[in-house]
Amino acid sequence: MASLIDPTGTGFLLAENRRMPMHVGGLHLFEKPEGAGRDYGRQMYEAMRDVEEVAPLFLKRPHRSLATAGQLVWVDDDQFDIEHHVRHAALPRPGRIRELLDLAGNMHSTRLARERPLWEATVIEGLRDGRVALYTKTHHALVDGISAMRLLQSVLSTDRDRRSMPAPWDARTVVRRAAEMEAELAQMPTRTVRSALAIASEAAGLPGALARTLEKGVRNETSAISLYAPRTIFNQRITGSRRFAAQDWPIARLRGVGKATGTTINDVVLAMCSGAVRAYLEELGALPDAPLVAMVPVGLNAKQSQAASTDGGNAVGSVMCQLGTDLADPVDRLITIHTSMATGKRALSSMTPAQILAMSALGQAPAILAPLLRVEGVVRPPYNLVISNVPGPRTTHHWNGAKLTGTYPLSIPINGMALNITCTSYDGRLAFGLIGCRRTVPHLQRLLTHLDDELSALERAAAP
Amino acid sequence: MASLIDPTGTGFLLAENRRMPMHVGGLHLFEKPEGAGRDYGRQMYEAMRDVEEVAPLFLKRPHRSLATAGQLVWVDDDQFDIEHHVRHAALPRPGRIRELLDLAGNMHSTRLARERPLWEATVIEGLRDGRVALYTKTHHALVDGISAMRLLQSVLSTDRDRRSMPAPWDARTVVRRAAEMEAELAQMPTRTVRSALAIASEAAGLPGALARTLEKGVRNETSAISLYAPRTIFNQRITGSRRFAAQDWPIARLRGVGKATGTTINDVVLAMCSGAVRAYLEELGALPDAPLVAMVPVGLNAKQSQAASTDGGNAVGSVMCQLGTDLADPVDRLITIHTSMATGKRALSSMTPAQILAMSALGQAPAILAPLLRVEGVVRPPYNLVISNVPGPRTTHHWNGAKLTGTYPLSIPINGMALNITCTSYDGRLAFGLIGCRRTVPHLQRLLTHLDDELSALERAAAP
Repeated sequence: MASLIDPTGTGFLLAENRRMPMHVGGLHLFEKPEGAGRDYGRQMYEAMRDVEEVAPLFLKRPHRSLATAGQLVWVDDDQFDIEHHVRHAALPRPGRIRELLDLAGNMHSTRLARERPLWEATVIEGLRDGRVALYTKTHHALVDGISAMRLLQSVLSTDRDRRSMPAPWDARTVVRRAAEMEAELAQMPTRTVRSALAIASEAAGLPGALARTLEKGVRNETSAISLYAPRTIFNQRITGSRRFAAQDWPIARLRGVGKATGTTINDVVLAMCSGAVRAYLEELGALPDAPLVAMVPVGLNAKQSQAASTDGGNAVGSVMCQLGTDLADPVDRLITIHTSMATGKRALSSMTPAQILAMSALGQAPAILAPLLRVEGVVRPPYNLVISNVPGPRTTHHWNGAKLTGTYPLSIPINGMALNITCTSYDGRLAFGLIGCRRTVPHLQRLLTHLDDELSALERAAAP
Repeated sequence: MASLIDPTGTGFLLAENRRMPMHVGGLHLFEKPEGAGRDYGRQMYEAMRDVEEVAPLFLKRPHRSLATAGQLVWVDDDQFDIEHHVRHAALPRPGRIRELLDLAGNMHSTRLARERPLWEATVIEGLRDGRVALYTKTHHALVDGISAMRLLQSVLSTDRDRRSMPAPWDARTVVRRAAEMEAELAQMPTRTVRSALAIASEAAGLPGALARTLEKGVRNETSAISLYAPRTIFNQRITGSRRFAAQDWPIARLRGVGKATGTTINDVVLAMCSGAVRAYLEELGALPDAPLVAMVPVGLNAKQSQAASTDGGNAVGSVMCQLGTDLADPVDRLITIHTSMATGKRALSSMTPAQILAMSALGQAPAILAPLLRVEGVVRPPYNLVISNVPGPRTTHHWNGAKLTGTYPLSIPINGMALNITCTSYDGRLAFGLIGCRRTVPHLQRLLTHLDDELSALERAAAP
């Protein structure tokens, strides 16, 4: 059965090329259940693979032919082979996190073949601390970034004694997920993000009022929310090769800094990124005089979201955050960020629904919009990098007795935006997932050290 | 710089689809040099990756556009990233040969992305016996099967103390290879196979005299060399998923059987395959009454090859070998095979150059010809499987001190020919590489046990 691919999904498929694979990833770390043997990795792999019935979402592949009049449609894969999609791998010695990040970066670098359903999941053993990792890769045409991260979470349980839990692609999961995620989705829905994108990408196709608004936004002709972003090494053409770095820190540490300085945890996340990027660029002799600007997706309040949403749900807007990378003092940077975020959020309230939509779209789907609007290369970058922070579960979760100890997002760098930082919280820790073009962003892993240094510096400065 | 892809290469690119990836592979096993540490796998990987200058052959990718008038051409990859092509992987526990074969089968199942140069090489550690494996994957449009196998051999040395040896894709290698392989190529050239294929595929494009000859051959209207091949489970449509099995046996054992029965080592290879396939099909209740026919590529003698060759080099012809799978006794099967091969080779001598070309082409490039001639599904299979035996080095070889202990070929199953057995000799052992469609040929690895049983049975029967 063929079904039409929605405009957003089509947009991601059309925008995709070798330089910009359009899949999102997740790297999840599990502790073996008590009493599990050395072959636990294989057991987990087999449990993930031996699914009686795979959910329809995971069985469809994109197809375009004369019969579909050139239109991209979903068709069922009549040669579906679960062993292609669910894989079992191991780390080379010495099996440190470094080898895991290398493997995840490499797996994230190759495009999903369109002749098959657009997802893969790999159970990875061989970590020397005995944990087992799961790397998942899902095309953005299938699910958006947030849903991709939720995919695994939706099959986890807070009950560590629970067994017979399905894989995320099990047909049984979908029923459960539909019910369980409804509540969560009310807080941070992705459906509306997608519909905003759909509208924006349609608008981009026919350059009407919305497209003109977008262009204005890009050219900094509108409001306070659009800032001057300098050119940096991040804002170049990219290749398809990726490097991944990830680490997490106790939220309590970030909360401590926030309380002492009157800022939010999200401000501290942004300040950590700011300090890390500043140190990183300084080392390379590539720090611009003007401060960098980050695009930060934020949830909208009820009034805003009603305006921005086409179907009454909640919505996500974007704030352009001045990162204060020109300032030498960590606290000065934190305060600048706090002010910039507050200003940006206020500006969002004063925007028209069309403007919010345009901002959202620009933030969420630059990969779609840039080529369509031919923005790329014509004007200076609208911002320097994307930093998003997606809340996750607050309590410890398990899959068939295996405790999830960490979960790290791998997002999508795009042409002109070679670095993406996506954060997520889980079980009292804040996880940073940094993904960049391997060529354009050299020594990406150094940013982890800088993030750690920055948090320590903020703690020292904020200490009473 | 764009350069035209030769007709054979173009043929393989055009014939390729998801069901029939058109790459050939090699799995090579190395013993660590004396004194090497646990990180030897990484050292080998880094030596393979850190190549100063990559040879042009490994830098080009196929390209087709309006500018090339729709013609497939080779262009240099301006985003070449060696880390995409040279990889480092490890086996899941318990790190047996079984896990290695599973990994090689999975890696052999995915198509090479055409947006990049059409090759990959993966250094694999984690074998519990401490050896390190190298899996290579090269598109048939780049090199033919024999050259692909020789690729690694060409950089090996019989001197185990030699160091600073280049990777096969090192630009330095090409110069060496050109000189070193010239002599070897005189024995078993592949250039001519390719030109034969080129002619055949051109002929197939315009259905002239040669194409008619081919069709006759397929329809069994010509000579004694074309036999009746029954339908078997191997002769079905295939999927793109592969299972790989490999093992080697001392050549002395095969030679012993040959001497005692007045047959050749190649006859014994074919008899092992025959007995194994018979036992395998019997277990599945799928053994046809009529004996199976194998297509066996053979080297032509000087007179034949001069006739068949377009440029004065040597050539390869094909013999249709009756495998005697209807006979219960191992020696009866061996004698049948011996007779069939002798008859086939005599028939080859009496064929016209065009007929030899047609046979060669049918044998070497059915993947190209089947779709072009629309043979597939219309008539009964011309043969049931391909069994080829390519001679390799007779002495122990090393790469930077690491001893090559075994080398196993992975060839190309095609639609209607779900199983391929390719053998090669090395250092006193005969290695069998069995590759099949995972769906069409279930429990492929059982064939290894049957091969072993068959050799033992032949030895018992041939014992004085």
